[in-house]
Amino acid sequence: MQKILILGGGGMVGQKLATHLATDGLNGDRDIDVTLFDMGFPPVSAPGAQVAGNVSEPGTMTRLVADKPDVIYHLASVVSGEAEKDYAKGWAVNMQPMWELLEALRALHEASGGSYVPKIVFTSSIAVFGGPFPDKIGDEFLSAPQTSYGAQKAICELMLNDSSRKGYVDGVSIRLPTICVRPGKPNAAASGFFSGIIREPLNGLEAILPVDDSVRHWHASPRAAVGFLTHAIALDTAVLGGRRALNMPGFSCTVAEQIEALRRVAGDDAVALIKRQPDPDIIKIVSLWPRDFETDRALELGFKAEADFDEIIQVYIDDEMKTA
Amino acid sequence: MQKILILGGGGMVGQKLATHLATDGLNGDRDIDVTLFDMGFPPVSAPGAQVAGNVSEPGTMTRLVADKPDVIYHLASVVSGEAEKDYAKGWAVNMQPMWELLEALRALHEASGGSYVPKIVFTSSIAVFGGPFPDKIGDEFLSAPQTSYGAQKAICELMLNDSSRKGYVDGVSIRLPTICVRPGKPNAAASGFFSGIIREPLNGLEAILPVDDSVRHWHASPRAAVGFLTHAIALDTAVLGGRRALNMPGFSCTVAEQIEALRRVAGDDAVALIKRQPDPDIIKIVSLWPRDFETDRALELGFKAEADFDEIIQVYIDDEMKTA
Repeated sequence: MQKILILGGGGMVGQKLATHLATDGLNGDRDIDVTLFDMGFPPVSAPGAQVAGNVSEPGTMTRLVADKPDVIYHLASVVSGEAEKDYAKGWAVNMQPMWELLEALRALHEASGGSYVPKIVFTSSIAVFGGPFPDKIGDEFLSAPQTSYGAQKAICELMLNDSSRKGYVDGVSIRLPTICVRPGKPNAAASGFFSGIIREPLNGLEAILPVDDSVRHWHASPRAAVGFLTHAIALDTAVLGGRRALNMPGFSCTVAEQIEALRRVAGDDAVALIKRQPDPDIIKIVSLWPRDFETDRALELGFKAEADFDEIIQVYIDDEMKTA
Repeated sequence: MQKILILGGGGMVGQKLATHLATDGLNGDRDIDVTLFDMGFPPVSAPGAQVAGNVSEPGTMTRLVADKPDVIYHLASVVSGEAEKDYAKGWAVNMQPMWELLEALRALHEASGGSYVPKIVFTSSIAVFGGPFPDKIGDEFLSAPQTSYGAQKAICELMLNDSSRKGYVDGVSIRLPTICVRPGKPNAAASGFFSGIIREPLNGLEAILPVDDSVRHWHASPRAAVGFLTHAIALDTAVLGGRRALNMPGFSCTVAEQIEALRRVAGDDAVALIKRQPDPDIIKIVSLWPRDFETDRALELGFKAEADFDEIIQVYIDDEMKTA
């Protein structure tokens, strides 16, 4: 029986992961016991034991891992926009709990005589990168974040890497592309419109496009994200050579190309629902983001994402609209 | 009157800096008030008010900055070998105090209505890099540390960068080469022999060489380090474009080339005092270190180091042996 703890299990990716685990198991292993931890859960939640709480409350992480989970997914965080607005909260939620988690796990590791070495997958972000960028960001490009969110993610990666190097845990940080098309309501992320301009028109609703059509960005679907999360557990981390933060694969395209993909999938009427309404704040934030990657390491390690934006839209239709 | 606080002011670099400040002022400004903070101080200390304490004791940083220093040098840390041996202590000394320092300064910044924005220079290290390396590490190479010390330094850089980006402080992290030739006794750093094989023979003493002659490394003198520290304060940080961690210039050479420089400066008798005594632990640690850099950014910004190893030896003779 594998005990799996999902921190941030109430969020969009956490719920998708829990649903996948309930249906398909973890890489085929169905003998699993899943606990979801979050501030709250959707009214109809994915399967798993629910624990409500706040990762930033001291002692929370220590209590959560007391029964020695075999696998810990750390997806819990304040989103980029909120971390930028509320500096203290961003650091309290996005950095300090990782330290507490790793210290709690080190204590358990030592108490077990070294036999307890849980797997950890941490969802980092392409926000660890800051410009100026090369045309494509390679696997050896520096982390120079230009947001608090990015700095916090980069710091968690370093903590997890060092704790893993020492053998207390066996961790991997996966730097997610922007997840698109996000289902449901927009969240506070400045990147929300990348999903909104597809999701709302597909559902017959107007969508606001706050940036220029020429903006290029890096995308993967929620289904791809779940694939990254499960594949990260299957990985033999010995081959990572001490570099446990990985840029995940994705698909790079401009907003104009997103819109043309939408037109191919859903026609001119859908595209007509996109309203251009430039927002200087969002334009500024987005201008600081990476646009394209060369993810050789992750591809060699077997991580997979969509090959074009049409496919990303199709995943939304298959996974979200057919069940509605 | 500029108030200058030197955390780690009792250490070798802190003492050199304090001596320089007492003699030449800070970039020519002699209207300065210097406070040195450290666990202890040499019997004959450099000038400056001495405060003894431990950076890792909660509340220490807050008390130290209560009188709003204009300039803070953060040089205090546990060395690489000790941080590797004592994981808890390394993180407690090399990471947590930086967070406390920045939070204390943010509180003072906010209480001042935003007018208090101290300059901070943090001594980071080339240990933020981990292999495999390119022949020369450029300014955009990733930080993938393979020691706890390197991870802690990289994390402090990220914290300082973000606090500076938000305007709470005005910080720069300078990644020092190995400082060579260190005067006095060896410290616990695994890099100690790089200095030892020069310093001991110059003083007529035997020195142990624990690695192969072919080992290449990256050096700068203590005098160059003091120059980096003062120049970092003179810098207009607006030109850094949000990347406030800088690889300092240095000189790359092999141990064999160090020894030939020693021969040119001090003759065969000096070289004969070097005893080869391979140490597998040190060989392993050193094999993980960077060997050479291309420090275009720092050079363009006006940072200066020695042009060859003969000059590095000469600095030791001029600064340490002529005053003896």
